Amino acid sequence: MDRHTGIFLLRTLLVKLAGSVGAVAGGLAVGKEGPFVHAGACIGALLSQGGPPGIAPAWFRQFWNDRDRSDLVACGSAAGVAAAFRSPVGGVLFALEETTTWWRNQLLWYAFFTTAVVSVAVRVFMKTCAADTACGFFGSGGLIVYEMNEERQGFETHELLPVLLLGVIGGLVGSAFNHANQALAEWRKANLYKHGARGRVAEALAIAVVTSAVAFALPLVAQCQPCPVGGAEECPRPDTMSTGNFVPFMCEQGGQYNDMATLFFNTQDDAIRNLFSSKTKAEYSVNTLVVFTATFFTLALVTYGVAIPTGLFVPGILLGASYGRLVGVFVADMHPRQTIDEGTYALLGAASFLGGSMRLTVCTCVMLLELTNNLSMLPLVMLVLLVAKAVGDGTGVKPIYESLMDFKQLPYLEPNSDGLMRHITAAEACGRPAVCFQRVERVALVVETLRATRHSAFPVVTGGPEGERVIMGIVLRRHLMVLLASGRAFQPSPFVSEAASRVAFSFTQAEFSSPICEPPHPVSALRLSEEQLSMHMDLGPYVNPRCCLILRHQ
Amino acid sequence: MDRHTGIFLLRTLLVKLAGSVGAVAGGLAVGKEGPFVHAGACIGALLSQGGPPGIAPAWFRQFWNDRDRSDLVACGSAAGVAAAFRSPVGGVLFALEETTTWWRNQLLWYAFFTTAVVSVAVRVFMKTCAADTACGFFGSGGLIVYEMNEERQGFETHELLPVLLLGVIGGLVGSAFNHANQALAEWRKANLYKHGARGRVAEALAIAVVTSAVAFALPLVAQCQPCPVGGAEECPRPDTMSTGNFVPFMCEQGGQYNDMATLFFNTQDDAIRNLFSSKTKAEYSVNTLVVFTATFFTLALVTYGVAIPTGLFVPGILLGASYGRLVGVFVADMHPRQTIDEGTYALLGAASFLGGSMRLTVCTCVMLLELTNNLSMLPLVMLVLLVAKAVGDGTGVKPIYESLMDFKQLPYLEPNSDGLMRHITAAEACGRPAVCFQRVERVALVVETLRATRHSAFPVVTGGPEGERVIMGIVLRRHLMVLLASGRAFQPSPFVSEAASRVAFSFTQAEFSSPICEPPHPVSALRLSEEQLSMHMDLGPYVNPRCCLILRHQ
Repeated sequence: MDRHTGIFLLRTLLVKLAGSVGAVAGGLAVGKEGPFVHAGACIGALLSQGGPPGIAPAWFRQFWNDRDRSDLVACGSAAGVAAAFRSPVGGVLFALEETTTWWRNQLLWYAFFTTAVVSVAVRVFMKTCAADTACGFFGSGGLIVYEMNEERQGFETHELLPVLLLGVIGGLVGSAFNHANQALAEWRKANLYKHGARGRVAEALAIAVVTSAVAFALPLVAQCQPCPVGGAEECPRPDTMSTGNFVPFMCEQGGQYNDMATLFFNTQDDAIRNLFSSKTKAEYSVNTLVVFTATFFTLALVTYGVAIPTGLFVPGILLGASYGRLVGVFVADMHPRQTIDEGTYALLGAASFLGGSMRLTVCTCVMLLELTNNLSMLPLVMLVLLVAKAVGDGTGVKPIYESLMDFKQLPYLEPNSDGLMRHITAAEACGRPAVCFQRVERVALVVETLRATRHSAFPVVTGGPEGERVIMGIVLRRHLMVLLASGRAFQPSPFVSEAASRVAFSFTQAEFSSPICEPPHPVSALRLSEEQLSMHMDLGPYVNPRCCLILRHQ
Repeated sequence: MDRHTGIFLLRTLLVKLAGSVGAVAGGLAVGKEGPFVHAGACIGALLSQGGPPGIAPAWFRQFWNDRDRSDLVACGSAAGVAAAFRSPVGGVLFALEETTTWWRNQLLWYAFFTTAVVSVAVRVFMKTCAADTACGFFGSGGLIVYEMNEERQGFETHELLPVLLLGVIGGLVGSAFNHANQALAEWRKANLYKHGARGRVAEALAIAVVTSAVAFALPLVAQCQPCPVGGAEECPRPDTMSTGNFVPFMCEQGGQYNDMATLFFNTQDDAIRNLFSSKTKAEYSVNTLVVFTATFFTLALVTYGVAIPTGLFVPGILLGASYGRLVGVFVADMHPRQTIDEGTYALLGAASFLGGSMRLTVCTCVMLLELTNNLSMLPLVMLVLLVAKAVGDGTGVKPIYESLMDFKQLPYLEPNSDGLMRHITAAEACGRPAVCFQRVERVALVVETLRATRHSAFPVVTGGPEGERVIMGIVLRRHLMVLLASGRAFQPSPFVSEAASRVAFSFTQAEFSSPICEPPHPVSALRLSEEQLSMHMDLGPYVNPRCCLILRHQ
């Protein structure tokens, strides 16, 4: 976990939440779940230090270690998913599949505990909100966000073919999305962001304007459709309703609705619900679905990665649902006696896009189940996810989160080392000689080295019995900063002495731990006298000798 | 994974399946899912060696390594759960929570793939079975085993109190079950099994007789109840139906049914379905539920651990459902305007027993969801599981699978070492001096040592530069057996030579790999001449120098 980028600061959390409210409410092609996950992780990190810097009680310092921190961050991201989708088990699995390299059963239980509390709390809040109407959209749609509890038929064996095809399409579309998004991010970095923040703000504004323009222009040019006869839902939708199918827009005659408006003039959640609805086969014309898919793909593509808080799950579900429904309509035309209806094809389309772009399997599967509350389609959802992930992996394009981490150069511990690395020696991996310290080093030199480099750790070398240089281990930058700030380890003599290890024992563990949500102290903040700078430090007691333990997998 | 107990042999698989059919069909208080999981694991292990011993193609030897084997066994057990409960995601999570110490995302994806295939296959078989009626009970109840898709109300906040209470009860009952079962297993081992197989067979027969007697006697003495007026289901059940509520048994008047018979004269699956059913509040009298809970607890307790293939999930669900419904009836009496109905209390009772006895959280939660297809109760199920697990852990009684593994002394890699072990030195852990080999050892001595001990591995010591003894590493018994059987590593001289390492390179990896489903060759099968026995072996090239790598958790 990188503590230098400030991704867990309190102000990051606040800006992220405010930005997300603006972006989602403004109708951009972004989801709220990405910021939720980040907010949950931030809250976990803040909790691990007992609140914002300064007000943490002293006994909280026992949580100031990397393990408890990463546990709390993982639980926080699970809570974020659980809150965004009301999907507690999906949240646990998201934390498992996406946020951690290693996993242990204890952490599974912590994450489960967290999401259970989230789940009960959301339920109680919804109960409270049902009593008065001040909560806006919160709680609309019930505990299940995209309820699909109508009786749906099973499937015939021959229908597996279009389902498999949908998986292939999802793998290809998802990979194309990832690839194009990656290319766009590189173009942006090279051309747009070289002028600093102005480029970012201008881009975000431009995208907001374009999105709004498109969302109004397309329904304007779309043709009104006559309402179906004898449908279950009221058509056109009365003005008093703010959700639902069959939105009338610019339809002068009664008994007509605008299918493009039904997709654009709703929240994304409602649009998804409309696409998932069954027994509404003729609601969306093929033209509308094609245009919407292409437009929304482009909008989501350019929006994801802009300097606003974005999430990809909800746009991905909407995009997948629209081309899934398109496939469903084609299948229905070719083979009228289908048992899988077009709403289910929309669900499978959503699964295929998520599988092809994010390559999460179990987590996506459980999340879609919890979002729709319909288990009878589970075999098909699993099949689509499998095919989409396999096809996506086969294209060689990386999962979107992984390519973003590469792009942002965030350090992430891979579970397995790259196969090629087995043949590389340390000498080959080093571009230039490593910056080392002697065991006993002048304080001035240590300060100068910390100032001149940005390395997080430094090897410490010492003389072997026959005069050769031996690596003792590595010493961390942040430990050196603690030593320099305290000054207790300074010694006048340039030689190893017993006194140094006695000094080392006088440090407590708490002195070396630091809150993750605070930026590290800069070297320039050190105030050392000329006399101190001319002294020496014995780094021996602070060296980690097990600097690099390469594990072969069990 | 222990390869000496024969738990993955083909004959183990066949006997297990046959025994399970007998035990479940005979009406014992056992479930089919335990044998299913074992069968899945066996099939995984058999597949890893390309089928039963002897017919494996040579290229299968690449799977003959511990990692692929344990992956396949984990996927097999996931498939077992997926097939037994038609619960694919629950199967993945079972493999994750119960069968592996470490987990990586690759394995998640393998297990997901496996259960997706299981899920589609089960679906297709059920489709085929629906066409003709030769499949018996297979497929009855649909894809969802205990369908609960009636509209169930949410819950009021004050109703959390009885739900929490149910969690506490589950933790206590589950722990009591584990403790008593453990004590019984020890008693059995000490008293019943000292006469060999006869004791085991007699015990199994006795339990079968007692179970049958109880299952007939209790309904005989139970009083018939008058049918409720205006219920949704037909009462009494017509003779043509073999499943469902309101079984008439020894009820002479029409319009009556025997509630005890409704629980005992059904398969366990149907009894559970009856207990889960809603709007049947008065169906079971309090007396019947109390007697059934006590009786079934005792039956399940004495049956689990007998020498027949048993599973604990289904009996646990039935037991929990019966006391859960009891709690539901009490709550209804005290507080008539409840929104959680008695069928839901039965579901929560099942969760509480599984949580208290097995202490699996995420897996049980998803399994119960997939078994009942009702997500609206998810927050309550999670809450009950949390409380039951916490209370169970608080009692200090171990989870049932863990205590069974301890009892059977199966080796299982704990993720974290016991806290006490940090203060123990190797010398203190050794009861007596370790059996060691010199680097170059006489063949006769190696054979004699293998015959005289049952150790799986031996330290190899050699002389250090100053004459002290240095541990080189450890050599495995099964590698020594390969070396002795081939005879290629024998050398006349008792000294270290270059030739030994050339010989070592002549071995391929395949020679050291062996099928897991075959018992190891005994030492007595070695045929060595007098001349060979008087030769020497240089063990140096076969030593694993990283014999003991103690990991501190990341």
